[in-house]
Amino acid sequence: MQFECPLPQADHDRVQIAHGAGGRLSRELMATVFMPALNNPMLAELDDQARLILPPGRVAFTTDTYVITPLFFPGGNIGELAVHGTVNDLAVGGAVPRFLSAGFVLEEGFPLADLQLIVSSLGQAAAKAGVSVVTGDTKVVQKGQCDGVFINTSGIGEIREGIDVSCRHLQPGDRLILSGTLADHGIAVLCAREGLSMQMSVESDSASLNAMISAVLEVFPGIHAMRDPTRGGAAATLNELASASGVGIVLEEEAIPVHPEVRGACELLGIDPLTVANEGKVIIAVPSNGADAVLDALRRDVHGKNAAVIGEAVGDHPGVVVMRTAYGSRRVVEMPLGEQLPRIC
Amino acid sequence: MQFECPLPQADHDRVQIAHGAGGRLSRELMATVFMPALNNPMLAELDDQARLILPPGRVAFTTDTYVITPLFFPGGNIGELAVHGTVNDLAVGGAVPRFLSAGFVLEEGFPLADLQLIVSSLGQAAAKAGVSVVTGDTKVVQKGQCDGVFINTSGIGEIREGIDVSCRHLQPGDRLILSGTLADHGIAVLCAREGLSMQMSVESDSASLNAMISAVLEVFPGIHAMRDPTRGGAAATLNELASASGVGIVLEEEAIPVHPEVRGACELLGIDPLTVANEGKVIIAVPSNGADAVLDALRRDVHGKNAAVIGEAVGDHPGVVVMRTAYGSRRVVEMPLGEQLPRIC
Repeated sequence: MQFECPLPQADHDRVQIAHGAGGRLSRELMATVFMPALNNPMLAELDDQARLILPPGRVAFTTDTYVITPLFFPGGNIGELAVHGTVNDLAVGGAVPRFLSAGFVLEEGFPLADLQLIVSSLGQAAAKAGVSVVTGDTKVVQKGQCDGVFINTSGIGEIREGIDVSCRHLQPGDRLILSGTLADHGIAVLCAREGLSMQMSVESDSASLNAMISAVLEVFPGIHAMRDPTRGGAAATLNELASASGVGIVLEEEAIPVHPEVRGACELLGIDPLTVANEGKVIIAVPSNGADAVLDALRRDVHGKNAAVIGEAVGDHPGVVVMRTAYGSRRVVEMPLGEQLPRIC
Repeated sequence: MQFECPLPQADHDRVQIAHGAGGRLSRELMATVFMPALNNPMLAELDDQARLILPPGRVAFTTDTYVITPLFFPGGNIGELAVHGTVNDLAVGGAVPRFLSAGFVLEEGFPLADLQLIVSSLGQAAAKAGVSVVTGDTKVVQKGQCDGVFINTSGIGEIREGIDVSCRHLQPGDRLILSGTLADHGIAVLCAREGLSMQMSVESDSASLNAMISAVLEVFPGIHAMRDPTRGGAAATLNELASASGVGIVLEEEAIPVHPEVRGACELLGIDPLTVANEGKVIIAVPSNGADAVLDALRRDVHGKNAAVIGEAVGDHPGVVVMRTAYGSRRVVEMPLGEQLPRIC
């Protein structure tokens, strides 16, 4: 029978099993890596749970685990992505993101300097989005039992009064607005992973959209549905909206913004940009009388400058998404079976 | 350049990459594995965030990632453990646990039948503890990039009016009450891992303690501090309490309940039961006038039948935990550096 040696190993620059064991080295990691990057009074209490004061009303709650590879990619890293993704999941529910938890799984031997970069990036992204990381957890597994770093963030937000967006609220006649170019995140990560970064200037769109979405809801609170087209891309999101709301969707291919380099890469690789993950985009379904106001509000934000109406909801073919192509033909946009790119977020 | 094949593989009994990709197979996994086990109206809405209604007041928020190995151990499995641990972290904060999130990381090739067992066990544990799993996420990584299944659960609870427990509230004179035998979880898992299960009848104590803690708070709301001695064991928990509150602690070795078989295993293996993880125990610091009431309330619950006063807080040696041994000597109980047993929770 063998036990792990509880003594610190020679290499002090790397994550050790004892960093996740709840003892002195766990506290040291907390004091040197996590607290400086995430510091706030609630986290500093170091109780096993954070105590929050929320105003009465409805609260949104969401969770996501980030397993992206590589951990650092053009335009971002797993730390900030773990904030952006969860903040956006709250924002598209009509909530004001307020509090995050952060649960790390670290592989023994992972460089502490890289961990520090990731955690400080997570802290900066949280500060920028106006959310506090109030509670956390770190586990360490032996070398080879996970791939570097996985991060779970769960988030709590306050749902605004008078806002009632849901994937079931799409109605025939609703305009579908996309906040910018599709597929930047997936293609940037793919190129980094396959060593193609030299040939492309495309960066991930990874960003928190809560400020932009706030501005949109201010000018037009009557939005029916919002979703961020992450895993499975816009194809999955639009199929989910159509199916949950029992309406059809018609897209105009020519209206869908795609960065020229991304379009080129997709054509080369035989990938449909509609099925590629995004991490800083939102699809908004809005009654036709609100479309201009929403479009204007989006375009005033740096993350929405390429916003466009890409289609509309119809009473025909409920649950089915149809694309009118540039050549005038029509094709069904299917729910992707899976994802060409595993570990994209 | 190579892509993962997005088509389903031949083996339909195992987790595939596409199960985590947000497309059709993700929905299938949700419909066949997760929804039946966790079903509740909020989860069924399938939005990217759950909408909760919480009464005005203070809210507790906590997170934990479970990476235990083996996934099935005497007395439990990772699914129910992921409920018990997070429910207990809320309960020891004086909160009534209400809502959980569940984030799964699955290894490609993991048997779907085992996943079903784990998820259904998680669902049963949640129902038993009176909490709802209202939002979730599933990621799949390639074979060899994680070890079977990791589960993050985050939890939201309502903090009771008039309850103010904290690891900083220990006061000299407080009695320290332990709810039962120490080290059962760690030793049961260790024996299962090392193939010693035949020689031991000890099972993990993994359990949700929120009902027992509710009963205790009802009879004596003036409890100063509560903590569940998980990773790092009672030694870590008591050192944290002493250090956060700036008081000393004196323990009576003979008063600390340890199952005879667990004591034997610890002696054989050279492990101090004070440093071994528990998953169904709580340490309560209570003013001396409340000790009897708390002890009675604990002993009326099946999880507290072996509850005992194990020591008290003192004004001397602040931050230091001292044990009076069975032989009349005194020794310092140090904060463990790490944990002898990685991946214990």
